[in-house]
Amino acid sequence: MDPIERLEAIEEIRQLKARYFRCLDAKDWEGFGDVFTDDAQLDVSEDAADLADAIVGREAIIELVARAVGEAVTIHHGHMPEITVESSDAASGIWAMEDHLFWPEGGPVRSMHGYGHYRERYRRTDAGWRIERMVLTRLRVDLDRPPRDG
Amino acid sequence: MDPIERLEAIEEIRQLKARYFRCLDAKDWEGFGDVFTDDAQLDVSEDAADLADAIVGREAIIELVARAVGEAVTIHHGHMPEITVESSDAASGIWAMEDHLFWPEGGPVRSMHGYGHYRERYRRTDAGWRIERMVLTRLRVDLDRPPRDG
Amino acid sequence: MDPIERLEAIEEIRQLKARYFRCLDAKDWEGFGDVFTDDAQLDVSEDAADLADAIVGREAIIELVARAVGEAVTIHHGHMPEITVESSDAASGIWAMEDHLFWPEGGPVRSMHGYGHYRERYRRTDAGWRIERMVLTRLRVDLDRPPRDG
Repeated sequence: MDPIERLEAIEEIRQLKARYFRCLDAKDWEGFGDVFTDDAQLDVSEDAADLADAIVGREAIIELVARAVGEAVTIHHGHMPEITVESSDAASGIWAMEDHLFWPEGGPVRSMHGYGHYRERYRRTDAGWRIERMVLTRLRVDLDRPPRDG
Repeated sequence: MDPIERLEAIEEIRQLKARYFRCLDAKDWEGFGDVFTDDAQLDVSEDAADLADAIVGREAIIELVARAVGEAVTIHHGHMPEITVESSDAASGIWAMEDHLFWPEGGPVRSMHGYGHYRERYRRTDAGWRIERMVLTRLRVDLDRPPRDG
Repeated sequence: MDPIERLEAIEEIRQLKARYFRCLDAKDWEGFGDVFTDDAQLDVSEDAADLADAIVGREAIIELVARAVGEAVTIHHGHMPEITVESSDAASGIWAMEDHLFWPEGGPVRSMHGYGHYRERYRRTDAGWRIERMVLTRLRVDLDRPPRDG
């Protein structure tokens, strides 16, 4: 593959993932959905070996994520990408991640602080590179729960 | 624009922003000032729509920042840049950020932990790319205040 | 130096450092060792001016690091690289870093949260770019110790 095309693909995929994080934390669900292919798969089941529990399709992904974190102030940051461009329209990547979630008072959890990795596949569509598969595994999650009454 | 020039500009701007963070946390005010244009604007007023409250000029920016954080141990990290090169001498960028500040004992705040985004403009000068406008907005700020006496 | 070769070297070094972090946190010691040259130097003595206290050699580095953090859940993230390619087979870099370590219950420290910078040198070997020198200095370290009995 041409080295310039390869470097351009890596940069476009980095900015694609940046939009994923920014739109997620801004609760910009239209922008968030736009980073995925129509048929994208999202697996947060921690069973990365198989995608049996994956959510399939852009609309289902938006619905799941908006329901899970729509009420929270969320901070998601990605780090240290390892992006492999396999051809002019297929690529894969690994990203370290850290997230902080803060829910409104009165719920069962006040905040969450987690760490993990995304393993992803990308496909180049007519609109540019998009995420077609995202598998999230975690190294650790800390929850801050409110003290119980009584 | 030539694709190699574009990739080189993006890389130079990433390293420019890296110097911004490193010099800020090292309290290297000369190095910190050097990342800005002479007429740079800094707006941390959280009113990104208008730059009415912006600090203007490299010297004023150094003075403000050195006064605000000069006594603290500070950690500022940037993440997930979305850099758009508009021409050979103009570019814009969005960065996620996270900061931790730790003040000496005895003050009104012990530490601060914040999250937000920089929205920036860059200009290529004879000395290379420089920041000409920086607007910081925040998603969340947590303050740790000492317990009150009595 | 050819601009494309320079950009490719920077990208390869970024992915090299990403493997360093990912293998370290996965406790993949074979993958971890592979990011270093045979004769690599590691200095975490906080005395960056001189390498008198450096650990020398890939095997010694693996042994030291595995002993120090092998029992802990560790999170290491790098940020904001400033990579300078000096020639086709020599480069240097600065990285901001943040780490979180969590030890099993019963030890003298429950967790650690630190911040600092790596200053590194890279050499291109027949197998690709490798780390030949790594010096870590810290801006701050917070330790969480368990309360004492009695």
